[in-house]
Amino acid sequence: MVKKIVLLGATGSIGVQTADIIREHPHEFSLIGFSAGKNMDVTRKLIVEFNPEIVCIQQAEDAKTLTAEFPATTFVSGAKGLIEIAVWDADILVNAVLGSVGLEPTLEAIKLGRTIAIANKETLVTAGHLVMNSAKQFGAVILPVDSEHSALFQALNGEKKDQASRLILTASGGSFRDLTRDELKNVTVQDALNHPNWSMGSKITIDSATMVNKGLEVIEAHVLFGFAYADIDVVLHRESIIHSMVEFQDTSVIAQLGTPDMRVPIQYALSYPNRLPRPTAKRLDLAEISQLNFKKMDYKRFHALQLAFDAGNAGGTMTTVLNAANEQAVALFLDEKIKFLQIEEMIERAMDHHEVLSNPDLETILHVDAETRKSVKNMLK
Amino acid sequence: MVKKIVLLGATGSIGVQTADIIREHPHEFSLIGFSAGKNMDVTRKLIVEFNPEIVCIQQAEDAKTLTAEFPATTFVSGAKGLIEIAVWDADILVNAVLGSVGLEPTLEAIKLGRTIAIANKETLVTAGHLVMNSAKQFGAVILPVDSEHSALFQALNGEKKDQASRLILTASGGSFRDLTRDELKNVTVQDALNHPNWSMGSKITIDSATMVNKGLEVIEAHVLFGFAYADIDVVLHRESIIHSMVEFQDTSVIAQLGTPDMRVPIQYALSYPNRLPRPTAKRLDLAEISQLNFKKMDYKRFHALQLAFDAGNAGGTMTTVLNAANEQAVALFLDEKIKFLQIEEMIERAMDHHEVLSNPDLETILHVDAETRKSVKNMLK
Repeated sequence: MVKKIVLLGATGSIGVQTADIIREHPHEFSLIGFSAGKNMDVTRKLIVEFNPEIVCIQQAEDAKTLTAEFPATTFVSGAKGLIEIAVWDADILVNAVLGSVGLEPTLEAIKLGRTIAIANKETLVTAGHLVMNSAKQFGAVILPVDSEHSALFQALNGEKKDQASRLILTASGGSFRDLTRDELKNVTVQDALNHPNWSMGSKITIDSATMVNKGLEVIEAHVLFGFAYADIDVVLHRESIIHSMVEFQDTSVIAQLGTPDMRVPIQYALSYPNRLPRPTAKRLDLAEISQLNFKKMDYKRFHALQLAFDAGNAGGTMTTVLNAANEQAVALFLDEKIKFLQIEEMIERAMDHHEVLSNPDLETILHVDAETRKSVKNMLK
Repeated sequence: MVKKIVLLGATGSIGVQTADIIREHPHEFSLIGFSAGKNMDVTRKLIVEFNPEIVCIQQAEDAKTLTAEFPATTFVSGAKGLIEIAVWDADILVNAVLGSVGLEPTLEAIKLGRTIAIANKETLVTAGHLVMNSAKQFGAVILPVDSEHSALFQALNGEKKDQASRLILTASGGSFRDLTRDELKNVTVQDALNHPNWSMGSKITIDSATMVNKGLEVIEAHVLFGFAYADIDVVLHRESIIHSMVEFQDTSVIAQLGTPDMRVPIQYALSYPNRLPRPTAKRLDLAEISQLNFKKMDYKRFHALQLAFDAGNAGGTMTTVLNAANEQAVALFLDEKIKFLQIEEMIERAMDHHEVLSNPDLETILHVDAETRKSVKNMLK
């Protein structure tokens, strides 16, 4: 049976690679709906190729233009449109949009018991308790897409979670891993965008350089797998070949390894519980790689990762503050309004000034999110 | 519920460590029967500690002596006694004897549908088809104990075997891994017994130095998991931290890692499908280990491994010849009757002179085994 897929964020890095997987497996997957931003050329190409039932585009006027061009497809737009495609009848909703915009559509799809392949970590970081509680209530399956969480998910396959003792996330260290904190002071946007292992979007590449990305992943791992923060470790592993590991109470460690290719975990989320061939992919050759290196995480050097653990342990709205402050600060850095180390300074200031509200509802989360962004912008004044 | 365990080979390296696991988990496991060789002191200690229902000892007169000392325990002896304890009412039969002597008792226990934890690789290497076909027919579960096969078994946990593309066994390279073939010519028994990672019995330590051990493991993996020899790879990995891996058709690789401690896979076989704590064991610390190295296997340097693949591909009685010739040659080497490189020469000569009989029955296997040992001894004349 062909699985019907709706893809939120078709033109982003994960979205493009999700489309690759669907393209490679036409007898397994069908892209019946997707959302795109403003790039009309790419959107047109996707429509022609996949002939979707529904498409959400950012601007209402673009939706009108496309309706005239493709009368067989339904076009919707904006945040409301994103919800409309999220609840469209499908087998899997892939949430690959950037930032907190993915939260509401995901919650609506969960209410319908849909299987969600989640690449949008902000959804889990800001509202993990809502997502997971709701998923439990409505019987929705949440599948990770991120390579680290896919690795953890695969390592837990066939195992009893209460017999696992520790999640061990690997971190490449990002583009600045060999720099001291002093050397970080004057790094540029261009320097930061040059990631050693993975080809990704610019926001996540900056997050990788600050280690905020790993921090978000730690919180996401806590949410997805229900492990206490004390039982989640991060180890520096520059080659990014071991994507993450699970330690069990018998001291056995199960790891998932692979070449750095996001299409593997994306495909796994779509094909789960099966594995499909990836004939175009490079097979892992450990003899060729020859060496895997590991180093103890240095939480002073990578201070932002410590902030993420702090936010996670504080709980409630604090992870929303971490995420919103980071999104705003990264935008300022990419605009060259602030320096690299100011990203974590702004996150820390926002966290310091926040009074945690526990067990927040969606409205509270969205409010704290907006307030945090505003306050971070105001830090510039 | 306490699992009742019968242990064939209680005084060998694996047997002693199996007793450790049973000792550590008195609420989980009970040693109700075991076999021992000639060491009466160790046997007496085990009887006092575990109060078993039945014990098999090598010599009939020793059985008599023990019967007088421990009237509550049944004592049997010899090859016949080994079968009697193998079919004794228990939940798991651990086959940890050395050499082909474990074959018949295992087959008899399989006929009763028993779960077999198998550390005796000769049983699978010489009569894999009989063991696995019989296990299938009588619904007996075969659980690997060897660290490599336990790793493969764990990596396949929760997966569909037909979606796995390759088994990748790791090999430390043994005590002579850094020597050239020329340097191997005059190595001594003492040199060979000095294994870098694992503490094991002398036969298996020599097999590890010749790489015959890895060859037997390749054949065992073929038998246990049903993969073609072309889909089984061996990679040199000197640290023995990754115990083995499975590659799936989506290019994902699942690996099992751990410190080199045989008690972990032994315990896993006993506790399967659960994992029990191992509070006394060292947890794996990759940052402390810092580096894992991998090298392409060199089948010219490690010629005996090539012989094992050749024997596996020839099939039928050829793996029995490989195993019997090796057992005899290793005995001659340990007696300092032959040099180290003569072990593989003798195996190769025995294989060269053997006409394969396909799908052999037990009688044929035992006959070929005995004939091969004789012919290897005769090579000295």
